Amino acid sequence: MNVGVIGSTGYAGQQLVWLLNNHKEVNISFLASHSYSDNIYSSIYKNYRDFMQDICINIHEVYESLSSVDIVFIALPHGKSMEITKKLLSKGVKVIDLGADFRLKSLKMYEQWYELSHKKKDLLTESIYGLPELHKDSIRNAKIVANPGCYPTASILALAPLIKNNLIDISTIVIDAKSGVSGAGRALNLGTLFCECNESVKAYKVGEHRHTPEIEQELSLLANKEITLLFTPHLIPMNRGILATCYSRATKKLSSDDLHDIYREFYFEDYFIRIGEDIPETKWVRGSNFCDIGMRFDKRSGNIVIVSAIDNLIKGAAGQALQNMNIMCGFDEWEGLNFPSMIP
Amino acid sequence: MNVGVIGSTGYAGQQLVWLLNNHKEVNISFLASHSYSDNIYSSIYKNYRDFMQDICINIHEVYESLSSVDIVFIALPHGKSMEITKKLLSKGVKVIDLGADFRLKSLKMYEQWYELSHKKKDLLTESIYGLPELHKDSIRNAKIVANPGCYPTASILALAPLIKNNLIDISTIVIDAKSGVSGAGRALNLGTLFCECNESVKAYKVGEHRHTPEIEQELSLLANKEITLLFTPHLIPMNRGILATCYSRATKKLSSDDLHDIYREFYFEDYFIRIGEDIPETKWVRGSNFCDIGMRFDKRSGNIVIVSAIDNLIKGAAGQALQNMNIMCGFDEWEGLNFPSMIP
Amino acid sequence: MNVGVIGSTGYAGQQLVWLLNNHKEVNISFLASHSYSDNIYSSIYKNYRDFMQDICINIHEVYESLSSVDIVFIALPHGKSMEITKKLLSKGVKVIDLGADFRLKSLKMYEQWYELSHKKKDLLTESIYGLPELHKDSIRNAKIVANPGCYPTASILALAPLIKNNLIDISTIVIDAKSGVSGAGRALNLGTLFCECNESVKAYKVGEHRHTPEIEQELSLLANKEITLLFTPHLIPMNRGILATCYSRATKKLSSDDLHDIYREFYFEDYFIRIGEDIPETKWVRGSNFCDIGMRFDKRSGNIVIVSAIDNLIKGAAGQALQNMNIMCGFDEWEGLNFPSMIP
Amino acid sequence: MNVGVIGSTGYAGQQLVWLLNNHKEVNISFLASHSYSDNIYSSIYKNYRDFMQDICINIHEVYESLSSVDIVFIALPHGKSMEITKKLLSKGVKVIDLGADFRLKSLKMYEQWYELSHKKKDLLTESIYGLPELHKDSIRNAKIVANPGCYPTASILALAPLIKNNLIDISTIVIDAKSGVSGAGRALNLGTLFCECNESVKAYKVGEHRHTPEIEQELSLLANKEITLLFTPHLIPMNRGILATCYSRATKKLSSDDLHDIYREFYFEDYFIRIGEDIPETKWVRGSNFCDIGMRFDKRSGNIVIVSAIDNLIKGAAGQALQNMNIMCGFDEWEGLNFPSMIP
Repeated sequence: MNVGVIGSTGYAGQQLVWLLNNHKEVNISFLASHSYSDNIYSSIYKNYRDFMQDICINIHEVYESLSSVDIVFIALPHGKSMEITKKLLSKGVKVIDLGADFRLKSLKMYEQWYELSHKKKDLLTESIYGLPELHKDSIRNAKIVANPGCYPTASILALAPLIKNNLIDISTIVIDAKSGVSGAGRALNLGTLFCECNESVKAYKVGEHRHTPEIEQELSLLANKEITLLFTPHLIPMNRGILATCYSRATKKLSSDDLHDIYREFYFEDYFIRIGEDIPETKWVRGSNFCDIGMRFDKRSGNIVIVSAIDNLIKGAAGQALQNMNIMCGFDEWEGLNFPSMIP
Repeated sequence: MNVGVIGSTGYAGQQLVWLLNNHKEVNISFLASHSYSDNIYSSIYKNYRDFMQDICINIHEVYESLSSVDIVFIALPHGKSMEITKKLLSKGVKVIDLGADFRLKSLKMYEQWYELSHKKKDLLTESIYGLPELHKDSIRNAKIVANPGCYPTASILALAPLIKNNLIDISTIVIDAKSGVSGAGRALNLGTLFCECNESVKAYKVGEHRHTPEIEQELSLLANKEITLLFTPHLIPMNRGILATCYSRATKKLSSDDLHDIYREFYFEDYFIRIGEDIPETKWVRGSNFCDIGMRFDKRSGNIVIVSAIDNLIKGAAGQALQNMNIMCGFDEWEGLNFPSMIP
Repeated sequence: MNVGVIGSTGYAGQQLVWLLNNHKEVNISFLASHSYSDNIYSSIYKNYRDFMQDICINIHEVYESLSSVDIVFIALPHGKSMEITKKLLSKGVKVIDLGADFRLKSLKMYEQWYELSHKKKDLLTESIYGLPELHKDSIRNAKIVANPGCYPTASILALAPLIKNNLIDISTIVIDAKSGVSGAGRALNLGTLFCECNESVKAYKVGEHRHTPEIEQELSLLANKEITLLFTPHLIPMNRGILATCYSRATKKLSSDDLHDIYREFYFEDYFIRIGEDIPETKWVRGSNFCDIGMRFDKRSGNIVIVSAIDNLIKGAAGQALQNMNIMCGFDEWEGLNFPSMIP
Repeated sequence: MNVGVIGSTGYAGQQLVWLLNNHKEVNISFLASHSYSDNIYSSIYKNYRDFMQDICINIHEVYESLSSVDIVFIALPHGKSMEITKKLLSKGVKVIDLGADFRLKSLKMYEQWYELSHKKKDLLTESIYGLPELHKDSIRNAKIVANPGCYPTASILALAPLIKNNLIDISTIVIDAKSGVSGAGRALNLGTLFCECNESVKAYKVGEHRHTPEIEQELSLLANKEITLLFTPHLIPMNRGILATCYSRATKKLSSDDLHDIYREFYFEDYFIRIGEDIPETKWVRGSNFCDIGMRFDKRSGNIVIVSAIDNLIKGAAGQALQNMNIMCGFDEWEGLNFPSMIP
């Protein structure tokens, strides 16, 4: 397997490089970077000293480096991968896009939430939403995989079994998500300076975050009905991890044990989903591709609370991309991803 | 004003000492401590070197030190202040209890949630729930003030205007709160070791936290109806601060601006409540007695989202206790508390 | 007292605003900012909501706002305060400069270490190095006070008694300093992004940091001999605080107790210096103007180890500036600064 | 290869379990724990859910589980492994002890610094100090490997080339080390509570830390002369990592480049030592077995500064233990350890 990575020097990109380097079937053909082309990769990420002596190439050099490349991963900001994807496909290369450009099936939704016109609409129908726990079969034969966002991964995995089993009033869903700072990327922003986010918590983009329509799209598909929900992200002073606390009204009485059984059954074949009796903590999944899910039925209020925990850069980005690659290539789903969190 | 502090070496207790030391009308008569009696206060909290040379006394010595003491603050774990309070009152000393023993008016609720029998039930009717923004008049003449819990302070202040103005379906309230680690106190617990909570987020006691009935009691009073709600606390890797994100269904359409006006009006005379257009961050209140509140009406889902931020040790404990003392003594409410957060 | 602040929106500047706001003799005439002129101060630092409604002015407006202003504080990057200072002095306003432009008496040293030509050399002789513990008398009558750097404050205070008392071989001084991230300021730099400095420690500018000549200048004055030393700063994942661990060879045998006595005597009249038997921790001084100093004579190796702790933004910047103002104005040195660290 | 781990639930022990689990030639025969015997391993460390369903055994069960076990790792506090080691050896099992009981060759030194009498003195001559970069050949045939302490690993690796090449005055060595909190272990101590060490830095046990004689022993061996040095550890608010900043006087003029060449040559065959032109940061080695070393000759002061960075739980404990195991078993030294740091 020969692969290339475009956008290899962002936080998600470099996490992908770590995982690819750890994958026994993969050879990295090129690492491309907009910000650091012509730099040695290990001079940017010094953890790669003695591991990755490659020089980052630019996007033009990418197009000349595609012979014998099977799959290209793109980890660019939204709006940047449409044309690149088109070109790559035209050269017979499969694409796994970690960005947002091919996730929303509705052009209107894309243009409304991202305030951009989509330049390659035709590809929207072709792309597969790469959440393996829901779309494994389609991923297998996909040419473009739209790798899910970090918040949607945690949120959809938390809520899918409830919706599929008609256990909740779908008009009552509230997702309160907490993310580490790496989710904001490596761009220079006042809000992600150490002293600005350390020792503080905030909610942001309340009801307005771009991951909202992505979550709604996937849950609506499962419900076979239009779902509108409220999604509130929060920024937490830690490097990695997302905890999604999901609230909704139960349509019937259940015990926490019942819920437990339902979840175990729903995710019976899914290696990376771990259903527990405990409410999860992000530390138990940090640095791994696992999604831990815990649940409570609150008899007093009639709410079901589902808590899911992922590493935003792995199951929420690069790990899931690799999981998708494994599925597309017929490898074991967990190849290169089969390790637990390293703590503390 | 002569005051004493029982439980002066816990996190809330020592915060109170800081504030009392900064209050121009207060003289500290004694500092008592169960764990550190006979130790010099500044040998435990070395920031007090040259400020506080007192030796911590034990509870027996307290009873011999009450002549000329006007008010005693108690900052002990629940269950520990009942008898002490009774004795102090009998000696003509007023009590501000930072613990939970006198907060719940319902004996049944206390015994159910705290799994303890209450030894001084008669005092429950006498005690005043010390949230100044709701009960200023009663506090003025109180002999026992039950200082609110940290989560209830943030939660009740966030939701009171909605309930008072009948703006929400009270059966739909969900409070998702995030707290810094100092809220767990200074006791030795595995879960509050640095390496156990740093770089991680968790929900805990989902639907079962003891602050739930306290929030329900106060909101029910405002609603004039029994309210049952869902309260989910989370532990965040920072020292101080609580952010309460409160969700509920609007009973009519409102704009975020409408909400803003309603809140400004409700808290018109309350010095420590700051209603803003922005969604608050805990850093802007950390180290101060302010409660910042921001709000959104989410047209899409029909939810109202109220976000409140406090410093758990100040407005959520010691600062509020001092605010109560100021009210009881006829001082300006902000005396000794009139400073903004120091950042970063 | 009417004062103005130029550079009021950097971390040191805003700390100064906090302290000035807390000082009972001070009226803030203007807040100036290069980056945020025309913005309301409390829209930048939201902790100041209801405290500071001023609109930040630009440097041109400063010059029109000087009538009745007694002192102006300048908190700008090096190279930026030379001409401003000249102008302010010409209008009869005293200047306390928190930047580096007037600290080094040697023009050559300034130009060598800062790689800039100095535009107002004549002022170098006039300016007083504003470390009150060493230069209180000169500060009293100064027109320009060059407020010391954060590392030099911690380092000079740690080493001055040893040098003054001829206790060490001055050719052996090594200072290993650890600073919180706020020392790097609020500018957008990759290295101060949360994810870049959280959960990591590094040394930087080993032997090359610009605070080196400042430390050497002051210690050489005390030694009456040229001192060359090694200064190594480190970046620590915390907001505030500097710990300077200072090593040097003793010229005679001493006990740690002897050292203790020598330090107590040297700093006998200095309110903000606290000599302790314990080795200091930054938390005990964070948020205060104190400098805690602890010491050990290591019999085994013959080294003296002095450890000093300050808050880099207070004793290392804004607090010291205010202390200097107090001295210049004949106020108590501790006016507006007389509070201990608030922990945790 | 069948291995057992005694002390598998401390921080070093569980790190070892992570690495063993990742090693393709290893089968874990048992996990023993004093604190958690009879508990399922993954109920203590929930990251191991679906990975490690073993029940922790106690020390008595260990002795019944040794048939077919080749190597036992012991990760217990000092004083606890002497008798266990003796028993294990008597049953023909090799021991890698991560504790301090067999590191010091001098009984006197052990008893002086650890304030304990050593119960198995005879084993002191038999044990090999397990720093592979210095003692690879002896490790190959060892029956007991005394795995080095975390600080000694960073310190010795930093200084060995200087001493071996006679480049410094050995009477002038000062080591200023900074460690993350996991170095203090998982025991309940006030000092390692989150709120006690977050946002603060301290020096501790100045000149008195038990790792001092261990560093001196190994450097003295290299110098062929008795070395006495000063070692000062500091606690840093982060989970993992040690940065050792090592100072000493050069005996001749060198450039930083010269130093660089000397280090590269010294560590030419050592896979896990990376000599760089940059001064290292702990993040580039965190979560890996690498030791990064950077260096400067400070012409001004005549000092050589060597900075080394390791992960205290990996190269400073469990990783090095596995590296030793690899050497003892004839595997590639990097088997199971061949991955870079995962950042951020």
